[in-house]
Amino acid sequence: MTIKLHCFGESGNAYKAALALDLSGLDWEPVFVDFFNGETRTTEYRTEINPMGEAPVMVDGDLKITQSGAIQQYVTDRTGKHGGAGDAKYEVLRWVLWDNHKLSSMAGMTRFLMNFLPEEKRPTEVIPFLQGRLKTAYQVLDGHLKGRDWIVGDGPTNADFSCCGYLFYPEPFGFDRADWPEIDRWLSNVQALDGWKHPYDLMPGNPSDRA
Amino acid sequence: MTIKLHCFGESGNAYKAALALDLSGLDWEPVFVDFFNGETRTTEYRTEINPMGEAPVMVDGDLKITQSGAIQQYVTDRTGKHGGAGDAKYEVLRWVLWDNHKLSSMAGMTRFLMNFLPEEKRPTEVIPFLQGRLKTAYQVLDGHLKGRDWIVGDGPTNADFSCCGYLFYPEPFGFDRADWPEIDRWLSNVQALDGWKHPYDLMPGNPSDRA
Repeated sequence: MTIKLHCFGESGNAYKAALALDLSGLDWEPVFVDFFNGETRTTEYRTEINPMGEAPVMVDGDLKITQSGAIQQYVTDRTGKHGGAGDAKYEVLRWVLWDNHKLSSMAGMTRFLMNFLPEEKRPTEVIPFLQGRLKTAYQVLDGHLKGRDWIVGDGPTNADFSCCGYLFYPEPFGFDRADWPEIDRWLSNVQALDGWKHPYDLMPGNPSDRA
Repeated sequence: MTIKLHCFGESGNAYKAALALDLSGLDWEPVFVDFFNGETRTTEYRTEINPMGEAPVMVDGDLKITQSGAIQQYVTDRTGKHGGAGDAKYEVLRWVLWDNHKLSSMAGMTRFLMNFLPEEKRPTEVIPFLQGRLKTAYQVLDGHLKGRDWIVGDGPTNADFSCCGYLFYPEPFGFDRADWPEIDRWLSNVQALDGWKHPYDLMPGNPSDRA
């Protein structure tokens, strides 16, 4: 049975799950979530898909999983791929959690505030505060990647698929690859993976649809 | 060998790991991290304990794990406890990730800004912004707990130990149990667990040490 992923192109959190599904070779298809027209706030979505009102949501037969990191773990359990071997699995999980805690959560929020909110609604003090937190996160990641091609071990894992979630997007949120040479090199490694796709190519929906 | 947890009482993230260790019956002991005197920024801590400069850090012989959710997973793997049975493990992981993404990350930051920063340094626009995000998180958790004693299944799991991380602290950050009856009832269930301890009783260090 084909796995369905409820997702949309602008969501870096959805991208983390879509990338894990795609690069693991599982049979899956995206189901477009019309987030910007309020679909995740509808009663139908909250009842049928996800009471938290979030995307992504993965449906595989009777099993429904939300949160990109949980979907990644399911993909790893199904395929044996990208989860880290032995105790390295705790390192992978650590970086997935770190990303949720310190990187993607802040990057997604900052990008939303700077690009998807009307200019007059942007909280002008909040954006630089979040960018300050993000700078610390970029420093940690860039420092860790010195001398490494991948975040954990010798090949791509969910740690990479998680931390890169928001870093390929063109909309400005204060991240410039040129400022972070190790992150830049590592992102090029991710892009060079066989079958890699940009979020706007991997999932339906992107800002030009609303232009 | 006794597991060591580098931690301090004020850290809700450390509490999540300490609570999981303690309630699982493993032999562990806390190692005090003098966060408020800058220990996590020292070269020694960054070199010997954690390059990310975070707490908690668990050390079990040669194995070192950071991020509370990864430590919880290790405890579950060691003891078979609190991880959810079968596919429920994805539900547990989902809530641990959700907590890191939406609840503890925001609550920890807001509590820090409101209580541990000098008043003149508090970013006045940021605090209400974060409290607005937190309110959405409380709504999701309160709604989920209607008709349930525990977040996943019929007993306590890492989902509970994660989401409660910051909710027992006395310092104000905009959370009042009286406003959220389902969260209040669930927190009482956690407090009623055999061996439960308040963060300031479970780990060394609390604000009165610095008064």
